[in-house]
Amino acid sequence: MSQLNTEVLSVGTELLLGHITNTDARDLSELLSGIGINVKYHTVVGDNPERLRACVQIARKRADILITTGGLGPTCDDLTKQVLAEAFGLRLVQDEAELRGLYDYIHNSSHYTENNLSQAMLPEGCTVFHNKWGTAPGCAFRADGKIVLMFPGPPKECVPMFREYGISYLRALSDEQIVSHSVRIFGIGESAVDDIFAEEMNAMVNPTMAPYAKECDCLLQITAKAKSEAEAEAMIRPVAEHVKERLGEWVYGTDVECLEEAVLQLLLERRLTFATAESCTGGEIAKRFTDIPGASSAFVGGAVVYTNGTKARILGLDPDMIEEKGAVSYEVAKALAENVRTLTGADIGIGVTGLAGPDSDGVHEVGTVFVSMAVEGRTYVRELHMGTKRTRSFIRRMSGNHAFDMMRRWLTGLKVEIVI
Amino acid sequence: MSQLNTEVLSVGTELLLGHITNTDARDLSELLSGIGINVKYHTVVGDNPERLRACVQIARKRADILITTGGLGPTCDDLTKQVLAEAFGLRLVQDEAELRGLYDYIHNSSHYTENNLSQAMLPEGCTVFHNKWGTAPGCAFRADGKIVLMFPGPPKECVPMFREYGISYLRALSDEQIVSHSVRIFGIGESAVDDIFAEEMNAMVNPTMAPYAKECDCLLQITAKAKSEAEAEAMIRPVAEHVKERLGEWVYGTDVECLEEAVLQLLLERRLTFATAESCTGGEIAKRFTDIPGASSAFVGGAVVYTNGTKARILGLDPDMIEEKGAVSYEVAKALAENVRTLTGADIGIGVTGLAGPDSDGVHEVGTVFVSMAVEGRTYVRELHMGTKRTRSFIRRMSGNHAFDMMRRWLTGLKVEIVI
Repeated sequence: MSQLNTEVLSVGTELLLGHITNTDARDLSELLSGIGINVKYHTVVGDNPERLRACVQIARKRADILITTGGLGPTCDDLTKQVLAEAFGLRLVQDEAELRGLYDYIHNSSHYTENNLSQAMLPEGCTVFHNKWGTAPGCAFRADGKIVLMFPGPPKECVPMFREYGISYLRALSDEQIVSHSVRIFGIGESAVDDIFAEEMNAMVNPTMAPYAKECDCLLQITAKAKSEAEAEAMIRPVAEHVKERLGEWVYGTDVECLEEAVLQLLLERRLTFATAESCTGGEIAKRFTDIPGASSAFVGGAVVYTNGTKARILGLDPDMIEEKGAVSYEVAKALAENVRTLTGADIGIGVTGLAGPDSDGVHEVGTVFVSMAVEGRTYVRELHMGTKRTRSFIRRMSGNHAFDMMRRWLTGLKVEIVI
Repeated sequence: MSQLNTEVLSVGTELLLGHITNTDARDLSELLSGIGINVKYHTVVGDNPERLRACVQIARKRADILITTGGLGPTCDDLTKQVLAEAFGLRLVQDEAELRGLYDYIHNSSHYTENNLSQAMLPEGCTVFHNKWGTAPGCAFRADGKIVLMFPGPPKECVPMFREYGISYLRALSDEQIVSHSVRIFGIGESAVDDIFAEEMNAMVNPTMAPYAKECDCLLQITAKAKSEAEAEAMIRPVAEHVKERLGEWVYGTDVECLEEAVLQLLLERRLTFATAESCTGGEIAKRFTDIPGASSAFVGGAVVYTNGTKARILGLDPDMIEEKGAVSYEVAKALAENVRTLTGADIGIGVTGLAGPDSDGVHEVGTVFVSMAVEGRTYVRELHMGTKRTRSFIRRMSGNHAFDMMRRWLTGLKVEIVI
């Protein structure tokens, strides 16, 4: 199946106007790569039947699997369904189950009208993907040697529907099962990971292994093909173990999305909590952690101390000490972590102070950040120098990653201080 | 010029693997739409000369302006430049100024090698876009009746380069100047805006007007074409005034990116500061505000009080009151705003408490949020019910927008309480 070329065709004028970003194409591509399907093209076209028709003709020539996002539902006259069905010589027929569901929905909602019933019209013989996250159903069919899957455009409908229906539909097409796992890495970059494994990777056929850079960390993806999922898993296991052994403390998890997710898991296991005192990150660490549902079991809160005044008023830092050492200093970072831990009663206190730019304070270079952690009577401080070429958003995000990494290391018994 | 069809062709295997999102296409499309150029297609293709060549052939058939992002620089062997130059029958020749610049860069940097010098090879006769944000230069040329522009892939190079060179290069091609302004709206939705202006918009030819939905607010874009920029501006002015008069207090700014940007401006003008006490938003309001450089002049900091314990410990809320009224209540919201204002000494205190989901507290529905503002001896509270179908991230973001909207309204002398 991995030899089948795939194109993701997104339909929506708002994408071409730049009003929204095509996150669907990214999310679907990542999920497809996870089951070993290669995406060769993304195309975006507006809500225009003629241009969509032309794009479908191009896509069917160069791809075997065609996945559409958007252009379903009443506001666009079910454009995508109409054009795709016609292109593959299929009629649209009424799906009774979807029709009943839509009737119920309309009678319980003031936002929808009889217009919406057209959504129950689907290509004859297709597999219907019921939309539990919205109203427009998706579908899949095979015709003319091609495989076509259609999903609605809103990401919160498209992505869960693809996870629930798309993955298994595509898996079922093949007697070969493809499984992929990602080893997540923080502390060394993608090119260093590449250097370490270059020779091995070149020699690998199945499973394969490839490193990828994320914004502030990286990952190594291991992919195996086999007759069954279990067999593929068994092929990956020793490779993953080898990678973890070789990279050691740089590995923060497998198949996790980010450092904070790994930290939440560790805190829950140990029944520990933390609190934050953020200066230059301005609430970013708290925000990121509380993006995860269930964060409240491990995070009590903390302070955003953006000025020297609030460092003193909320966290009781000594104004003379701040004056003497400077807001961006080892001492202030240390006091932030210690004081927020005491104030909140959390097990771990995290502090961050630094220069996210664009302006310097005249003393330090932009990109200078102190990240601290107070726990069990000891305070650890990392001094970071990220370089003046980094953006404000990178510096803030990377500072957060260091805070999470310090917690992860302490929670797993690793050395917290590392050389950057 | 607005009749010229444009295609944005992004080159990069990492986009097809879903490791990064194609924000370049979005950002460029928005900037292009601002000068009245219609983008008709986005295409993404991997780092593969054969497939890129085929995509270029398709693009030159259906578009007049072809803008590439990515595939410049040494890591991809300057793929895009090679393929595009060849497709339009141009040789690559050495650009002396770029070569000198690269020599200097290499001698001052440990990361680059002689390999990088190939970046100074550019299509003969092209306009060179010097890259002040990285090393790979961009360029533009006209050939075979088509206009081709190339930019590097990293967003922090691509977008500023397009702003600096792309916009003026494209403007200079036309004797018609196109100007566009966006009136930003919060408090009523895009469809309501559409209803209000539908008849007028249908009758408009030049300027034109169109509403667009953003995640938690919306905008009305007004675009005029004229012989000069000044003339186009003069044509837009009365329309913008009319829109602002008609929509009144729902308009929070023109050509601003978000509510927090408008609020920062207002706070700076009045030399006022604010502080935040965030429960369910978990630092999101502080984080969003401090994303803006210069936020420290108007934002002192505050508390993230994710548990009842921190509401009491950091902000001194009465635990019995929290127990009696519930953490998600009018009274707790009120106390959050008032206490954080007192604690920090800021002019305005903001409080947020609510249920962002996915789990309910058994008392309130997910999407119930109280947003409060304490200022000049008075406290305002908005009670929001966003519905149980909203995502955690929407509820958190929308709560933040309400906090910023309350400040905006108070700062501009409008009524703060509105009916949701």
